[in-house]
Amino acid sequence: MAAPGVSELATPLGDRLAERVAARESQLIVGLDPDPAALWPLAGDDLAADAPPAERAATAVLRHCRALIDAVAPACVGVKLQLACFERLGPPGWRVLHETAAHAREAGLLVIADGKRGDIDVTAKAYAEALFGGTGSPFGDIPGLRADLATVNPLMGTDAIAPFVTAARAHGAGVLVLVRTSNPGAADVEDLALAGGGTVADRLAGLVDEFGRDAVGRHGLADVGAVVGATAPAHLARLRELMPHAPLLLPGVGAQGGRIADLAAAFAPGRAGGLVSASRSIAAAPASDGADPATAARREAERLRAAAWALA
Amino acid sequence: MAAPGVSELATPLGDRLAERVAARESQLIVGLDPDPAALWPLAGDDLAADAPPAERAATAVLRHCRALIDAVAPACVGVKLQLACFERLGPPGWRVLHETAAHAREAGLLVIADGKRGDIDVTAKAYAEALFGGTGSPFGDIPGLRADLATVNPLMGTDAIAPFVTAARAHGAGVLVLVRTSNPGAADVEDLALAGGGTVADRLAGLVDEFGRDAVGRHGLADVGAVVGATAPAHLARLRELMPHAPLLLPGVGAQGGRIADLAAAFAPGRAGGLVSASRSIAAAPASDGADPATAARREAERLRAAAWALA
Repeated sequence: MAAPGVSELATPLGDRLAERVAARESQLIVGLDPDPAALWPLAGDDLAADAPPAERAATAVLRHCRALIDAVAPACVGVKLQLACFERLGPPGWRVLHETAAHAREAGLLVIADGKRGDIDVTAKAYAEALFGGTGSPFGDIPGLRADLATVNPLMGTDAIAPFVTAARAHGAGVLVLVRTSNPGAADVEDLALAGGGTVADRLAGLVDEFGRDAVGRHGLADVGAVVGATAPAHLARLRELMPHAPLLLPGVGAQGGRIADLAAAFAPGRAGGLVSASRSIAAAPASDGADPATAARREAERLRAAAWALA
Repeated sequence: MAAPGVSELATPLGDRLAERVAARESQLIVGLDPDPAALWPLAGDDLAADAPPAERAATAVLRHCRALIDAVAPACVGVKLQLACFERLGPPGWRVLHETAAHAREAGLLVIADGKRGDIDVTAKAYAEALFGGTGSPFGDIPGLRADLATVNPLMGTDAIAPFVTAARAHGAGVLVLVRTSNPGAADVEDLALAGGGTVADRLAGLVDEFGRDAVGRHGLADVGAVVGATAPAHLARLRELMPHAPLLLPGVGAQGGRIADLAAAFAPGRAGGLVSASRSIAAAPASDGADPATAARREAERLRAAAWALA
């Protein structure tokens, strides 16, 4: 039986992305990585004290995420959902993950599922069912998260990536492969020099280009992109050359130290070639004038949006 | 506030593993990767047709997993839960994931959470909370999966691994780092030759040894181990030398083509040095004499158990 929601006629992700960025005049992705100990005020103050902690925390997280989306949506083109932060809330966490994604879609935002999954073929297919179109079963169709993009870990090679690309493409969605991440530890493995020349990250970039080459849309973007940390701009120009058509997700702006001004190379294929992702720097934006968190977040998101838009 | 369930006095995982293997006379791990379209008969036949598909599928999956555990537990030392197969069932899937883990524990089995997670430090900590001891929150303590071991993807380097090791160690649990996986695509990245000598997998093995070196128990095993596919025994002896104290999870026996007879090098530090993992070859064991799936699974598990036990 077929997975639910497959459309042969879906617009390819590369084109959908380019058109959405143009329409919203934004390349900004707000990262949602909610910590139940650091939610916006009032998110859970009125919850019944006799409900299980996971239920109360999940409901408060959902309210926080909805409020954050409502505050910053006008400045953004998408949200990035950090799956770990929902998983740690147990079964109610998965419920509010789906509800948060739905709220983002209603606000006109693309949904990026940031789970960095990667496994052998049959397992990768199961992850892809969870994140994209769902699972067909004898019990009926089980809905997936309907993400527009999902991050994928390529350590296990091409057969670990391919099922994600196949499932995403069938739904007009896309994949973002980890190539050179934003954390200090990226140097431990991703930057290793290979005997044949180049680095591990360069090899991963080659895989990204191979997977996306046959699915470049009319705006010059493929449906297979890459994660390239904004904290290491020295790598960006080289990796862009190796992946001329890949949408690049650029995390690490703000709390991790990345600067938008260093990211120009990402936008070579057009404005939608680079998606600037910021999480804590928006959700916990400082407000020296005493503004509430929503106002401070909206200001910071608009500042980041304008800075990125001015680059390309 | 502290995460729930932390015990300063927990027996280190390496010792717990060695003692459990000796007591059960088994190094066999049964992999649970339930497909709602391929469950054992009767798992879901009586479920109310008006319940949502995800609820019905999850309940049927739980029954299947419980029956499989009951059938093969006497031949096994642990279960390996393939998180993808529960995630694709949505919120009810996370509920039955926890219930399946509880059933395995009641049967005296170790629980391996096979999610291959890996992310920047703050996110890795959130994943570790979900998989091990849970999450402290202003709403009360949220329970984790209480896994004994969890698989971790090391592509992002040491700071993506460290939070898992820290959280696991605090709970007497352990971590299994992907080093050389069982799939054909492992050759694409893990086998790449490095300019400084050795391969990417060798470098990952070095990280495993470094993380575990200070936590080797009295049976010679650390609480940081590795995943080394049983399908590529040519790598096994070399990787064992690089990780002399690491428990090795050896997936790929059976359906993926790995053979137990090729795995002797894994057991150099003792019988618990190698954990032989089989999934589909047990759950879907053929029975030419018309035996039911439970009987066929039990026979195949016992065959695999005896073959591994005879090696070391």
